[in-house]
Amino acid sequence: MFVQRTLRQAVKAHSAFTSSPAAYSAKVLSSRFYSTAVAPLDASKLEINASKNKKPLQENSQLVFGKTFSDNMLTIEWEAGKGWAKPEIKEYGKLHLDPSAVVFHYSFECFEGMKAYKDKNGKTRLFRPDMNMKRFNKSAARIALPNFEDEELIKLIGEFLKVDDRWIPKGRGYSLYLRPTMIGTQESLGVGASNKALIFVIASPVGPYFPSGFNAVNLLATSDKVRAWPGGTGDAKVGGNYAPCIKPQLDANKEGYQQNLWLFGADHQVTEVGTMNCFVFWKNEQGERELVTPDLDGSILPGVTRDSILSLARQWGEFKVSERKFTMADLVKADKEGRIIEMFGAGTACIVCPIKKINFEGKDINIPLDPSDKTSQAGKLTKRINDAIMDIQYGDVEGPKGWSVVV
Amino acid sequence: MFVQRTLRQAVKAHSAFTSSPAAYSAKVLSSRFYSTAVAPLDASKLEINASKNKKPLQENSQLVFGKTFSDNMLTIEWEAGKGWAKPEIKEYGKLHLDPSAVVFHYSFECFEGMKAYKDKNGKTRLFRPDMNMKRFNKSAARIALPNFEDEELIKLIGEFLKVDDRWIPKGRGYSLYLRPTMIGTQESLGVGASNKALIFVIASPVGPYFPSGFNAVNLLATSDKVRAWPGGTGDAKVGGNYAPCIKPQLDANKEGYQQNLWLFGADHQVTEVGTMNCFVFWKNEQGERELVTPDLDGSILPGVTRDSILSLARQWGEFKVSERKFTMADLVKADKEGRIIEMFGAGTACIVCPIKKINFEGKDINIPLDPSDKTSQAGKLTKRINDAIMDIQYGDVEGPKGWSVVV
Repeated sequence: MFVQRTLRQAVKAHSAFTSSPAAYSAKVLSSRFYSTAVAPLDASKLEINASKNKKPLQENSQLVFGKTFSDNMLTIEWEAGKGWAKPEIKEYGKLHLDPSAVVFHYSFECFEGMKAYKDKNGKTRLFRPDMNMKRFNKSAARIALPNFEDEELIKLIGEFLKVDDRWIPKGRGYSLYLRPTMIGTQESLGVGASNKALIFVIASPVGPYFPSGFNAVNLLATSDKVRAWPGGTGDAKVGGNYAPCIKPQLDANKEGYQQNLWLFGADHQVTEVGTMNCFVFWKNEQGERELVTPDLDGSILPGVTRDSILSLARQWGEFKVSERKFTMADLVKADKEGRIIEMFGAGTACIVCPIKKINFEGKDINIPLDPSDKTSQAGKLTKRINDAIMDIQYGDVEGPKGWSVVV
Repeated sequence: MFVQRTLRQAVKAHSAFTSSPAAYSAKVLSSRFYSTAVAPLDASKLEINASKNKKPLQENSQLVFGKTFSDNMLTIEWEAGKGWAKPEIKEYGKLHLDPSAVVFHYSFECFEGMKAYKDKNGKTRLFRPDMNMKRFNKSAARIALPNFEDEELIKLIGEFLKVDDRWIPKGRGYSLYLRPTMIGTQESLGVGASNKALIFVIASPVGPYFPSGFNAVNLLATSDKVRAWPGGTGDAKVGGNYAPCIKPQLDANKEGYQQNLWLFGADHQVTEVGTMNCFVFWKNEQGERELVTPDLDGSILPGVTRDSILSLARQWGEFKVSERKFTMADLVKADKEGRIIEMFGAGTACIVCPIKKINFEGKDINIPLDPSDKTSQAGKLTKRINDAIMDIQYGDVEGPKGWSVVV
């Protein structure tokens, strides 16, 4: 009898406190996963209360990433036991949150980065939005935030883009950056699954990452601080992955390097560069031309651009394409033997970002660029990948099925 | 000439974008660290605009951790190049933040947990607030948030406690839980140091963790998910450490365990339990009675309770006290040989939380409690530590200098 009571008592005693929200979480969990009454995310319930205030647009040349936002935003609230409320498009404006909201304390937050492009016919296109939605749901699940119906959020983003259509800048290289974000909004300091959440999508017009030809970056190979680890959250786009990388980045900046090359383990495996996936194109030890990026072992972000580059390169079939680990020792050896062809980071913001130098343990590795190109610092493959992906994003070339989606 | 231009150009090109806020960060950095004009945190500038609305207090028996908050809150804004603004005590209420505020995206957030106690003379006491302030500053620096003057924030918390004095519950085991929090509030999606920040302190009255005698917890030893890693943020109290632990906790709950015992490495080192530090009291392999907790290797939170337990136990001088790594194999062997005396977690919420069972790879390790105690599940040392710390916190016993501070 005593034993039978114990667990229940313990759960009850613990449920109310920071360290042990067992009972509470169990309740949330059961309502979330076992109740059939909770409302799914339903785009058909959208309410549009768009802003009557039309802010002035900026000149394309004045656009700065993530600084200016469109007139409206898309918001959708979620509550445990109830599910997703009516989605709403309303005037862009402040969020009003209790200071006890768990997003401020325990980092219940995840996001996506994607872009809307205007094609030459004036149509609006998204690039592989299904990949973003899949990852968004995966990130949310990793931090016990609710999941949603992928297709419905894509539809809602399409509606949002219709309302704020004038904010999508025209011209190759220009786009409307979209930031779908999910936060936990429970108003209680108990450390457990959040009983409330909010999806919001905001939009910021952006220009090309490299407005006048590529500028290659210098990297500081960093091993004293570690971006991600197996069993951690490196493969999820959660907020907690980002703030800890700023101090090392500032330290790198002070020494004249723009980004960190994140290493892992005693053998200094190359993982990511800044907030981008990392690619090396080299002649490997077997003498084959090979494009390599680290495999998705749980600590690497499954980038949409990363996946697209791998797909395109495999489709081209001109060189070997590998997802596998490689170390700084591999790079140093390849450099000594003159086998590195080029190297770049990859992500939504830049598509590709050429690398020209890596400092590792006080010594520089110089990465080749295209010496025949006097106006732009990038290797030939880097430029080819950039053009190929951009062609598809802007609808100039028909890409693989489902990559460029007219909304 | 080209080479000279390159870095500047690259920095400029990168500064505006998600992946590379080099120039921007350098500007923030220099204004923060090299300008002498920035204002320090100054408690003498406090403005008190306390709420005229006095919310009803709850009965002591009704108190739930982190659910109800006092009438007011303390807030202090910071801006790069300007420093700390006037602190303000004002009515507890919502924070109004732009959806682009970096706290929602990149987890610029850190916090402390501390308590205010009413002693038998009606005076208000804090327990080792200098330790909390030191750690708060260390956490902030780890995620490139600004630092502040420790003593000034302690003074401000003292003023806050005077204004909300009626919210400090009386009685042993009761206290006003304080949650100092710092968030980055920059309104821009660039991934760099936040150019604005906010400290807020909120307060929630709480009762004893174990209202009617200790309830020992069952733990699931967890190695597929990892709480912290060398080079990560395990030794800082940043939000990003918490949300990723909820899913594993829910999984443990489903199997009937209240908490995770977080392991690390191929040799399954014991690190923390739930959100608490972990202690084992055993007869070690040399036959000595020894209290052990993992050493602060960068992945362990430097708990105030942890430090207090070590100090007290060393002062008692009755058994060996060690900060060192130990593994699940060590625990399994000690269990087989009947050498485990007791085991507990330690943290501000509970002081100590006894452990009675650990499931590791499908097998249970039963941890002894005090068999002579029919009303409470805890070992003798666990109970002694709890009483000793509580005696000091409530001013009933004079502790080491600076531990119990009347404000």
